[in-house]
Amino acid sequence: MATYVLVHGAWHDGSLLADVAGHLRGDGWDVHTPTVRGNGADAEPGVGLEEAIGSIADYLAGHDLSDVVLAGHSHGGMIISGVYDRMPDRVKRLVYWNAFVPHDGESLIDLVPAHMGAIFRKRAEASEDMRFSPTYPVWRDVFFNDGDGAAAQAAYDRLCPQPYATFADKIALKTPPAAWKVGKSYINSLMDTAMPHSTGWHPNMSERLGMFRLIQMMGGHETCFTDPEGTARALHMAGRD
Amino acid sequence: MATYVLVHGAWHDGSLLADVAGHLRGDGWDVHTPTVRGNGADAEPGVGLEEAIGSIADYLAGHDLSDVVLAGHSHGGMIISGVYDRMPDRVKRLVYWNAFVPHDGESLIDLVPAHMGAIFRKRAEASEDMRFSPTYPVWRDVFFNDGDGAAAQAAYDRLCPQPYATFADKIALKTPPAAWKVGKSYINSLMDTAMPHSTGWHPNMSERLGMFRLIQMMGGHETCFTDPEGTARALHMAGRD
Amino acid sequence: MATYVLVHGAWHDGSLLADVAGHLRGDGWDVHTPTVRGNGADAEPGVGLEEAIGSIADYLAGHDLSDVVLAGHSHGGMIISGVYDRMPDRVKRLVYWNAFVPHDGESLIDLVPAHMGAIFRKRAEASEDMRFSPTYPVWRDVFFNDGDGAAAQAAYDRLCPQPYATFADKIALKTPPAAWKVGKSYINSLMDTAMPHSTGWHPNMSERLGMFRLIQMMGGHETCFTDPEGTARALHMAGRD
Repeated sequence: MATYVLVHGAWHDGSLLADVAGHLRGDGWDVHTPTVRGNGADAEPGVGLEEAIGSIADYLAGHDLSDVVLAGHSHGGMIISGVYDRMPDRVKRLVYWNAFVPHDGESLIDLVPAHMGAIFRKRAEASEDMRFSPTYPVWRDVFFNDGDGAAAQAAYDRLCPQPYATFADKIALKTPPAAWKVGKSYINSLMDTAMPHSTGWHPNMSERLGMFRLIQMMGGHETCFTDPEGTARALHMAGRD
Repeated sequence: MATYVLVHGAWHDGSLLADVAGHLRGDGWDVHTPTVRGNGADAEPGVGLEEAIGSIADYLAGHDLSDVVLAGHSHGGMIISGVYDRMPDRVKRLVYWNAFVPHDGESLIDLVPAHMGAIFRKRAEASEDMRFSPTYPVWRDVFFNDGDGAAAQAAYDRLCPQPYATFADKIALKTPPAAWKVGKSYINSLMDTAMPHSTGWHPNMSERLGMFRLIQMMGGHETCFTDPEGTARALHMAGRD
Repeated sequence: MATYVLVHGAWHDGSLLADVAGHLRGDGWDVHTPTVRGNGADAEPGVGLEEAIGSIADYLAGHDLSDVVLAGHSHGGMIISGVYDRMPDRVKRLVYWNAFVPHDGESLIDLVPAHMGAIFRKRAEASEDMRFSPTYPVWRDVFFNDGDGAAAQAAYDRLCPQPYATFADKIALKTPPAAWKVGKSYINSLMDTAMPHSTGWHPNMSERLGMFRLIQMMGGHETCFTDPEGTARALHMAGRD
């Protein structure tokens, strides 16, 4: 196997992917789980999308990684899209895991239903530093639907606030995703309602990739907690040659 | 765990949920499976939707149940919607299991494709007392698709006729489902074609709930017969805190 | 059980269904896996849709098969539709397995997105004899998404070129599929992206059948290689009384 770099989603940091990474290593992969700038317990506020993308680009360059399978979960799709567009030569395959696939000039806010975008902005504006988190009821029922209440609460306590700018900033991409000359995979968890299924992750986001390898699994948006072994299995199937 | 009240669908009665209830009790729930007025082997004809709803409201009041997880299968979604709207204080969470989610002034007939509504009315009008059942071929292929023929026939022999008025009467709701201040879950069985998938149960019906917890499982419309253990597992996941 | 006749899809021949057939025989079925005229290692070029259909009709008549469960995979849906329309008395149930369900006057090309049809024609026109195969990258990611790379390559090496005329010829059907008086089933593999999911096999193709029995399974388009046991299980569920 080769090198897997897993990029977490909003409100997460790299440490929350440790269980998934452990199982992937058991399949023979070299696995990295960097934390995106702006996320994590000690992050500074005021980080925007370009800095967030730059931090993972720097990680790949700093560790001189090549032939990377670069995976992004949820908001991580924004990150890996930007990283690939800036340094295509280091990447062998992109894996979107219930993740956003932006076109040039789009923000995450542009890709979610209007009522969700309005809630995100309202919560950020009510904060001290334009960072925000989901409420527990939303986390419990919409994100953690396949887990139990105790695990939902324990995971919630490990989340970090997310800089709103990483949701509102529009991405710059030189090339549209469907034209990228790289392997592409999309993992879709069938119970994931973080995006309402009437618009949905798949095929709404996935088909923006042009040709791609689809992997589906049961489970919700947070299988890094509720099913790390199944998640690793899906990532393995998505990333192998 | 708390109290689970399971409301069966059309052509069923409470006794047909015995296997599911048994497995749910094994998870620690106190489980009730009342029969809706108008259903069951000895039911009188001429029952309408309001009386059907009232019979389950009376059951909750008569047994002085509170903090109830109130689940409805299929037509049972009409029933639990009406019961909750009339006595919200007794209910902790609503669970729609491949069930209808009506708005104020809608009947079940309003929620199914026009050709299905026409068949229902035609079959009722051909009866003595405006009650009707599905034909065996429809039951076998559309409802019991995941089971074998012998089990399909045995289950068919246990069905009761359904009063057409419970399908045609329009429900009265003071508040739209999306505004209800209660936990809401939706169970969707991926092989359930009782509603054609081009319109479908999920997300067509489910997203009427506003925020909800989605649980998906394999299986068709009649997993109370074909997979009672899996059904209980889904109900447990849908109903727990 | 009764007699199962499995009709392979494009680029396949009957020998590639041997593993599936073996598992089905274990369920008690008498299983036939004929090769459609125009397919197979030694096939002559220039075969059209009508000759392809005729070869399977001849197979049923030549073996004097009756009460047949007639299944078609992918392009095989074109074949079994034509065979049933020509000899309905020999067929007990039709099983479409991620297969095309044509109306009178439609070709396979009419049923796929325009960009796919253009690729098929371009590849055929670039050949010596108007036969063509998928490229390996398409096979690997779009068809063989649930398998590993070594198995994808091994299966690819066993494919045969497909006569373009069997894709472009328009079928003649006396009766529309929804009106056929025969049992009908549709097997849908949830990871099958041979048809993009925004249009998709199910319910886009399946609901053309009118009333049908739906069976769903995980897996991609080539579960004859990646999951022959699960495929046989789905065929058994689709074909039994």
